[in-house]
Amino acid sequence: MSIEKLKDRYLLISKYNTAAALLQWDFETHMPKKAADKRADVIGEISTKAFELSVSDEIGELIKEAEKENLNEIEKAIIKVGKKEYEKFKKIPPELFKEFNIETAKAQSSWEEAKNKNDFNIFKPHLEKVVELTKKMADYLSYKENRYDALLDLYEPGLTTAELKKIINPLKKFLVDYLKKLDNGKKPISIMKGYFPVEKQKELSLKALKLMKYDFDAGRMDISMHPFTTTIGFNDVRITTRYNENDLNDSLYSTIHEGGHALYEQGIPEEFYGLPIGDGASMAIHESQSRFWENIIGRSLEFWKYFYNDLIEIFPEFKEYTPEDIFKAVNLVERSFIRTEADEVTYNLHIMLRFEIEEALINDNIEVKDLPEIWNKKMKEYLGIIPENDSEGVLQDVHWAHGSFGYFPSYMLGNLYSAQFYYKMKKDIPDLNTKISHGNLHPALIWLRENIHSKGKIYEPVELVKIVTGESLNPEYFINYIENKYNMVYEL
Amino acid sequence: MSIEKLKDRYLLISKYNTAAALLQWDFETHMPKKAADKRADVIGEISTKAFELSVSDEIGELIKEAEKENLNEIEKAIIKVGKKEYEKFKKIPPELFKEFNIETAKAQSSWEEAKNKNDFNIFKPHLEKVVELTKKMADYLSYKENRYDALLDLYEPGLTTAELKKIINPLKKFLVDYLKKLDNGKKPISIMKGYFPVEKQKELSLKALKLMKYDFDAGRMDISMHPFTTTIGFNDVRITTRYNENDLNDSLYSTIHEGGHALYEQGIPEEFYGLPIGDGASMAIHESQSRFWENIIGRSLEFWKYFYNDLIEIFPEFKEYTPEDIFKAVNLVERSFIRTEADEVTYNLHIMLRFEIEEALINDNIEVKDLPEIWNKKMKEYLGIIPENDSEGVLQDVHWAHGSFGYFPSYMLGNLYSAQFYYKMKKDIPDLNTKISHGNLHPALIWLRENIHSKGKIYEPVELVKIVTGESLNPEYFINYIENKYNMVYEL
Repeated sequence: MSIEKLKDRYLLISKYNTAAALLQWDFETHMPKKAADKRADVIGEISTKAFELSVSDEIGELIKEAEKENLNEIEKAIIKVGKKEYEKFKKIPPELFKEFNIETAKAQSSWEEAKNKNDFNIFKPHLEKVVELTKKMADYLSYKENRYDALLDLYEPGLTTAELKKIINPLKKFLVDYLKKLDNGKKPISIMKGYFPVEKQKELSLKALKLMKYDFDAGRMDISMHPFTTTIGFNDVRITTRYNENDLNDSLYSTIHEGGHALYEQGIPEEFYGLPIGDGASMAIHESQSRFWENIIGRSLEFWKYFYNDLIEIFPEFKEYTPEDIFKAVNLVERSFIRTEADEVTYNLHIMLRFEIEEALINDNIEVKDLPEIWNKKMKEYLGIIPENDSEGVLQDVHWAHGSFGYFPSYMLGNLYSAQFYYKMKKDIPDLNTKISHGNLHPALIWLRENIHSKGKIYEPVELVKIVTGESLNPEYFINYIENKYNMVYEL
Repeated sequence: MSIEKLKDRYLLISKYNTAAALLQWDFETHMPKKAADKRADVIGEISTKAFELSVSDEIGELIKEAEKENLNEIEKAIIKVGKKEYEKFKKIPPELFKEFNIETAKAQSSWEEAKNKNDFNIFKPHLEKVVELTKKMADYLSYKENRYDALLDLYEPGLTTAELKKIINPLKKFLVDYLKKLDNGKKPISIMKGYFPVEKQKELSLKALKLMKYDFDAGRMDISMHPFTTTIGFNDVRITTRYNENDLNDSLYSTIHEGGHALYEQGIPEEFYGLPIGDGASMAIHESQSRFWENIIGRSLEFWKYFYNDLIEIFPEFKEYTPEDIFKAVNLVERSFIRTEADEVTYNLHIMLRFEIEEALINDNIEVKDLPEIWNKKMKEYLGIIPENDSEGVLQDVHWAHGSFGYFPSYMLGNLYSAQFYYKMKKDIPDLNTKISHGNLHPALIWLRENIHSKGKIYEPVELVKIVTGESLNPEYFINYIENKYNMVYEL
């Protein structure tokens, strides 16, 4: 049976992916510093090997033969997803891939330097090169209406730029207006700053992960500069966090966020492992899981009604506050410069700004040299503030240096999906919030496992959201969620 | 130039070796337990890939072409070592290799079970299979006089079984007699047992490693069940240790031992990295380094004269003892069953017993079924004691399950080399012991770097010991070292 041979082939590739993921994880968590130089080459070699195997003629042949066989539903999904990916990446000439990898590596170094020295000009020529190569890639990948569609499809399969714009427009209007409305509300007091020893923060983070039922026998938590989740292999989904001794939010919410990603990966069925369907449905669906746990659960009043006791056990200084105080404090809204530090209300505006810039760049409507100016103009328009320097502005994110154009919308879409899923979850579990306030988060996890995790990558996100919630992605759920929550936080 | 292409090819292989080494390190130190099953397959795949590349026709062709080129001394050494290894492994049919890997994996599981259940019969059929395959391997590898020569050469290139026996015979006689002599000496009091919290033991171990000048920017220390050293890549030489809360010797001397291996690897020149010469000269030379630091330095009176202050800073309870007391306590000699716990005097007897058994097995002079009986008979003869069960006897070591016949002598040879190197080192550095007693171990490291580490695998051990000490391996140095030291310890 070709389908069996094909599966074996995918499992072989997954072994190289395991090696590459572990090499990368180690690079960011444990590797001695002098080993960095040579390590990058090793990761490159092993990743390239995995990529070559995945676009080999052999895979193509096996897909073609297996298609003719009598397949069950799971197998049909393997072929559907596998074929789409194979055909997509097969279209890109290997030399272009190689050049892209070399240039993005250079761009990343120059971005680091530019950010440190606060000098966009250092990054500019490299970014121009990356944009040029990305456009070439998009042309090879092909698209109907908008060159950006080809890139968006890499991260959010099935979604077009036109559809995305239709989602963004009402949302942008709402957020800009609502932000102004909050100015008239009662701003929560900031109580999460102070001195919090790392060991105690770690204890708190681990308590949160245990409450979420993250499986520590199939994962672990380490420290890295930027928190991330990585699936090394089946039953091996690791997260990282970071500690800021002066800010309790940073590690706790990084941990819960990554824990959300990890629960998704830990919930993908064993029989999907290593196969094209053995992954999250998309970057945005993945982000919906992390944001669900981080924001919808972790920043809810119900969560703090329960978790308050864990908090004061470890940090008794919080006894002077109520669970409500903490709930409000962790939901402070601020017009700020840095996306990764943004709250739920402003976060999507940061994303819209990036999306609009990158979509225009890819379609030759603006030029790289004009980016700092455009960035600042949009910051003024959406958030009412202008960064003092490019390091806090256009240089803040690594994504463009990586050539990851089309990725940013995933963050926003994740927020929207999470609110829509939450609405349906509450319908299915009427006493969900009561349960959360008693520290019982399990019904939420079971619902996610059943409706989302167990489906792996079988469905494109557009289909999945319809299957799960009965309708297409609708930003109204997010808008309602924000209004309900922040009217409470700001006592409006 | 073919030599350049050949070097590139070796560097490519080294990348797969890095991946495999990291996967294995992670397996033993950090991996979540549920991931074990799938991980073994990944390690198998990546290691096999590295092996296939190393015996590929392409390597053979490049060696043949490069040999004709105008090479410098280093390049000649690369060819010499590379060619020997290529030809050796090329002789073994790939199917035999595969079968060997499968059967040794099975043998290892059965060994674990047999050891746990104290039942040699569980292991017996698997060991018989492994012995049969090992004999086939040896026949493919070829030899002149003794089938065991082919296996010995895998670990100690250039040494024959006949030569080894010539070394063993006088040494065995000395050790058996000397052990009886010690019975009339003054046995040191045991003071290294008690309660020692892990964190404090770790602090002590790290102090020892720092004193040795182990480079923590090019390595790290973790915990594993069995301590080991692994070279993940250039500037990435990691060690592991283990902690026994009731025994201070275990972690401290495991750490120093592995630190000795690691100093060797950290001292191999960068330009050798990834090439056939970028390795230790042999297993025994490697062991000479670990044993030098563990025993000759770490168990010396001079070391304790200095390290005593570090010890009592961390464990003040040792203030009631003198450095001399500790020196004696860490050199307690005991007739015991377990090789890995054996002292310097009895250790080599444990090895001789194993060597004699495996040499006889490989040459069909004894049968697997008779192993427990022969083991116990030899234990009685050499050490005067008989284990109560096979778990403490013939089943104690994993080596035979791995099919690592020919490896055991390395441990003994390492002890002998270390004493011979030490003799020469003292001649070259007359005030060596004074320096050690002041905590200055650096002259010893510099000497090892210059004479041994910097030479990588350019020379076979037989040549190396002549170059370094001016004569062939001579057990008299070890005999003198033992007599001098233990006459002092036992006040003879």
